[in-house]
Amino acid sequence: MIDGTAHADQRNALDDAGPGPRSGCPVLPARGPVRPLGLAHATITGGFWGSRQDVNATATLAHCESWMERVGWLANFDRVAEGSTAPDRPGWSFSDSEVYKLIEALCWEAGRSGDAAAETAIKRLTARVARAQDSDGYLNTCFGHDRQPPRYSDMEMGHELYNTGHLLQAATARLRTVGEDDLVKVARRAADHVCRTFGADGVPAICGHPEIEVGLAEFGRALGVDRYVEQARLFLERRGHGTLRDVPLGRGYFQDDLPIRQAGVWRGHAVRALYLTAAAVDVAVDRADDELLTAVQRQWRRSVARRTFITGGMGSRHQDEGFGEDWELPPDRAYCETCAGVASMMVSWRLFLATGDTRYTDLIERTLFNVIATSPSSDGKAFFYANPLHQRVPGPPTDETQVSPRAEAGTRAPWFDVSCCPTNVARTLASLAGYLATTDGDSLQIHQYAPSTIRADLPGGRQVAVRVETDYPTSGSIRVHVTGDAAQPWTLALRVPAWAAGARLVEGGRTRPVEPGMVTVRRAFRAGDVVRLDLPMQPRFTWPDRRIDAVRGCVAVERGPEVLCVESLDLPHPDLLHALEIDPSVPPSGHTDGARVRGRLVAHPDNDWPYAATPTAGDPVDGGGDAGWFEVPLRQYHSWARRGPTGMRIWLPTAHREPATGQKTPAR
Amino acid sequence: MIDGTAHADQRNALDDAGPGPRSGCPVLPARGPVRPLGLAHATITGGFWGSRQDVNATATLAHCESWMERVGWLANFDRVAEGSTAPDRPGWSFSDSEVYKLIEALCWEAGRSGDAAAETAIKRLTARVARAQDSDGYLNTCFGHDRQPPRYSDMEMGHELYNTGHLLQAATARLRTVGEDDLVKVARRAADHVCRTFGADGVPAICGHPEIEVGLAEFGRALGVDRYVEQARLFLERRGHGTLRDVPLGRGYFQDDLPIRQAGVWRGHAVRALYLTAAAVDVAVDRADDELLTAVQRQWRRSVARRTFITGGMGSRHQDEGFGEDWELPPDRAYCETCAGVASMMVSWRLFLATGDTRYTDLIERTLFNVIATSPSSDGKAFFYANPLHQRVPGPPTDETQVSPRAEAGTRAPWFDVSCCPTNVARTLASLAGYLATTDGDSLQIHQYAPSTIRADLPGGRQVAVRVETDYPTSGSIRVHVTGDAAQPWTLALRVPAWAAGARLVEGGRTRPVEPGMVTVRRAFRAGDVVRLDLPMQPRFTWPDRRIDAVRGCVAVERGPEVLCVESLDLPHPDLLHALEIDPSVPPSGHTDGARVRGRLVAHPDNDWPYAATPTAGDPVDGGGDAGWFEVPLRQYHSWARRGPTGMRIWLPTAHREPATGQKTPAR
Repeated sequence: MIDGTAHADQRNALDDAGPGPRSGCPVLPARGPVRPLGLAHATITGGFWGSRQDVNATATLAHCESWMERVGWLANFDRVAEGSTAPDRPGWSFSDSEVYKLIEALCWEAGRSGDAAAETAIKRLTARVARAQDSDGYLNTCFGHDRQPPRYSDMEMGHELYNTGHLLQAATARLRTVGEDDLVKVARRAADHVCRTFGADGVPAICGHPEIEVGLAEFGRALGVDRYVEQARLFLERRGHGTLRDVPLGRGYFQDDLPIRQAGVWRGHAVRALYLTAAAVDVAVDRADDELLTAVQRQWRRSVARRTFITGGMGSRHQDEGFGEDWELPPDRAYCETCAGVASMMVSWRLFLATGDTRYTDLIERTLFNVIATSPSSDGKAFFYANPLHQRVPGPPTDETQVSPRAEAGTRAPWFDVSCCPTNVARTLASLAGYLATTDGDSLQIHQYAPSTIRADLPGGRQVAVRVETDYPTSGSIRVHVTGDAAQPWTLALRVPAWAAGARLVEGGRTRPVEPGMVTVRRAFRAGDVVRLDLPMQPRFTWPDRRIDAVRGCVAVERGPEVLCVESLDLPHPDLLHALEIDPSVPPSGHTDGARVRGRLVAHPDNDWPYAATPTAGDPVDGGGDAGWFEVPLRQYHSWARRGPTGMRIWLPTAHREPATGQKTPAR
Repeated sequence: MIDGTAHADQRNALDDAGPGPRSGCPVLPARGPVRPLGLAHATITGGFWGSRQDVNATATLAHCESWMERVGWLANFDRVAEGSTAPDRPGWSFSDSEVYKLIEALCWEAGRSGDAAAETAIKRLTARVARAQDSDGYLNTCFGHDRQPPRYSDMEMGHELYNTGHLLQAATARLRTVGEDDLVKVARRAADHVCRTFGADGVPAICGHPEIEVGLAEFGRALGVDRYVEQARLFLERRGHGTLRDVPLGRGYFQDDLPIRQAGVWRGHAVRALYLTAAAVDVAVDRADDELLTAVQRQWRRSVARRTFITGGMGSRHQDEGFGEDWELPPDRAYCETCAGVASMMVSWRLFLATGDTRYTDLIERTLFNVIATSPSSDGKAFFYANPLHQRVPGPPTDETQVSPRAEAGTRAPWFDVSCCPTNVARTLASLAGYLATTDGDSLQIHQYAPSTIRADLPGGRQVAVRVETDYPTSGSIRVHVTGDAAQPWTLALRVPAWAAGARLVEGGRTRPVEPGMVTVRRAFRAGDVVRLDLPMQPRFTWPDRRIDAVRGCVAVERGPEVLCVESLDLPHPDLLHALEIDPSVPPSGHTDGARVRGRLVAHPDNDWPYAATPTAGDPVDGGGDAGWFEVPLRQYHSWARRGPTGMRIWLPTAHREPATGQKTPAR
């Protein structure tokens, strides 16, 4: 395991050894112990994520543009340009941000693949957006024009700066892949307007939905304009002092209850909390603000330990799309918004780059396979917004023609009234190669495993390159082929996930067990050298902390990085998902796309009142085997409901006797 | 147990034997197997509910009026009268209804006690309300006047007819206790306006929040004006056909998704669902509509069996203040709005009057002791809005000077932005004697036990009277003293609650065991005769149906009709409520105000990730006893947080071994 503190002294030495400004990095801190490799250096060539990138490129991007045209969110820009605004316009006040997130996704896609259609779409959309920009740089289709509310008249819920933040992230993607263009010019004018309006001498306000902070910080980095980073810092420091008006959900909803340096845990709206935290890491790193960085690490640690679902999903409450209390992790009402998964990745990647700690890249893998991969349908044209861990009643069939008014339905929807998730998935998939690998001195570090090519510039002008071959996570065999000779030794470092007890490394004809963390091989590699990491892919039981009340008496099954689930349509009686109990004394047996466990359906009597003087007993339903026991198939959670509406559960009740009243409880 | 069907044939015979129009009945159906006794015939003279009625009369009623003055909801009526309305006014669109519910509470109070202050307040408030009524009978302070939105321009969320419904309920209370007065005149004009506007030839609309239906039905009954009952029927039949526009929470939110005759279960906003159902029973009974009555009974049965908390509380979701799916009953996020408890009583009392089935009066008792009694503080000046079954983190201290913007806080609040619950508690407590007893032929039936006097007019002009002496639920001994001689035999019938296994009846020198249901004693009673019912008050464990995922592996403790709970401030380590586990092999020991169980605190390690390959083991914290075991005190749930902010839980995790992987599970 890399020790983050050991690298603190190296920071200055690394400052000038980083990747170039147009190397396609989704995040590029001014300093840090490890340096990211962007799309210019890492390419996913196939496999689990390659096919998802293909679907994203060939279906999702056009799907998003076409829906935004259809529902009028693109035309909102035209109306501003043409002076035909009205009190009512299509879409919520944050619909502009969807256009910007789509542009960002297109920028990464064009950078990744050089796709001409993506390039054309960027220009087409940029032109429409640019025409709506006011002469002073203000750009918003909901406020500030004829018959609209005045600019910045609803800081709590108006989302104006939130929208601008996404514009800056889109422009950053452009800068990191292509360089200055019209989009960047529009973004510059918008950022300058924000700095003039809300700078140290300006209005001391903040936006109810954080995002401008991370947009400014990264845009400032990408342009080398420190004023933008400074404005991000100002917004961060202003927050948490009751700067916004109170709302029925309380100021914790938008993290204005406590200064971020003082907070001990994430609370309130999950996406808000996480976008804010991402910006805090950016500012902390670039300003060498160790107090702030430590505060964020503390919040991450408690929030991940006590407020995060086994899928990596965050957000326990529908009411405010927010975190709950510690240990409040209900599988059925888990919100786990797809966007919160994206935002969690943004935070963890930044913290990894700031510390080199594999806890962060472990959580990224979990979130990728169990939140990000879960949202889109196979064809990339329908999405989950919320990602619950338990669906009691199958949802309605997906209607490909209708906007879903609701975040939750049990089936994927083509578009939503609040349609933040599709474009967030799109920008994440298009930029995914940027999360695969880093360098640390003369080490090449690989964090996420996919068929890929990775090259890196190590100190001293040395170039190294590898090709990763794997069908992970179908199997756990990851073969890293070195594709060039090296005169001097360098280090290949591979992440061994925390779940991978029993992993082995095969290199130079030797096999050795390796522990979770980073495993390293150092030598003067020759072209053709292969280092193989074998991760154990036998499905395994996973038990919850006993303080998580909502899943007491249950166990989950995981296989590699994937959480598995039971779908009711795989049961002999699909209407009896609620009657399933499994035998945890028989370990799960393995499949490449799931597992099987020993279980049975125990039907319970339908009493008039569901509380009784003795524990309810049930009768096993015939499942074809002994006393009702049968082999229960489990599949990857990310594939649930792909075969149609179904009930589903990740946490499976275990069969055991409740201690009967009057009977001696066994000692623990 | 009374068999509801056996009474169907008696309906016609009973039609003319009912109580008089001014006998103070909260509900007075045109027909039914049993006939209610109102405030004119039943009086609570002390004890648990008597003291709560006193606090209600001496503190809560004035508290409500003073807060409504302070927050401007009363002045809203003055502004309409004076023509000084404005686009913004204090309060939500339903704040008028709070004034009406207060008037209703005052009417019952004046009827119950003849209190002169209540009588004065009724006149004072009625005068202010009356001045705001438009010449055509329309009465609303939020719509239809200068610079306000037009009348009935927001049927989904405008609450205009909802407000009117509460006005009619207030006037009904007046009619049932005093008779015609200015309040009734105002209500008549309002009801006539509604019938003209929304009648069979009028606008075929409905109100997003049901209430006008039950208001019209009961007002029509009280006045003998069938047109009002018919209008209630029209509103009921119009609902469920997508009559209202869709909302983000879906049409199920306001029960416009399915016609009530077709629905199988309650869903959506709980108070809406229950007010609607109350009206459906009224219409079904008065119109002898057995199909509708059967539909409601079916909905009650499934909703109580699968969507109701052990407290009787209803509403599993904060998001929509609504019911969840079957078995979705999370203790920590239980909403259990106080108003839903009131509404549940309204439904169950109507169903009891329509069927004579004690399942309904059993649920009323449970709801009274564990929802209605839980809401108000001891001094009657602060209230719970939501009634969760588990509070992880103590709430803030009650601030007696501030309106709470939120329904949930873990402490009682003096007033709320949405302050429906205080006045709902007030009207229920003031009219509570009306739920104690009924007659059925020549039977006097007693359903709820409190120190009280009850007299009844039996067929044939016979009058009977009893005095009930009890300190129930402190003890389970209920002594019914007959206070007059009878020439002919009559029947005294007493409800034996479903929880009361082992109950005994003592009469005529004999003691006999009695089963849950109605136990009867028939004879020509003499003055001084005593019938004693002894209900078993030993605290008892209660186990949940195994399909309630959220409380798997837990047990609750009840004593008599009261659900008990652990408060963290009673633990040796108040911060370790989450570490409590109890030994269900040792039955709870009894106290008059609670119980004790054997338990211990098991501290769990703070891991970075709360999911692991083996079940977490913990270390017992020193509790003073053997291996950490100690006597854990439990108190009545309705008294929780009365000693200050505290954690709390009703469902207690049981100590038992999780079956370890590789270990044989015991056969069931």
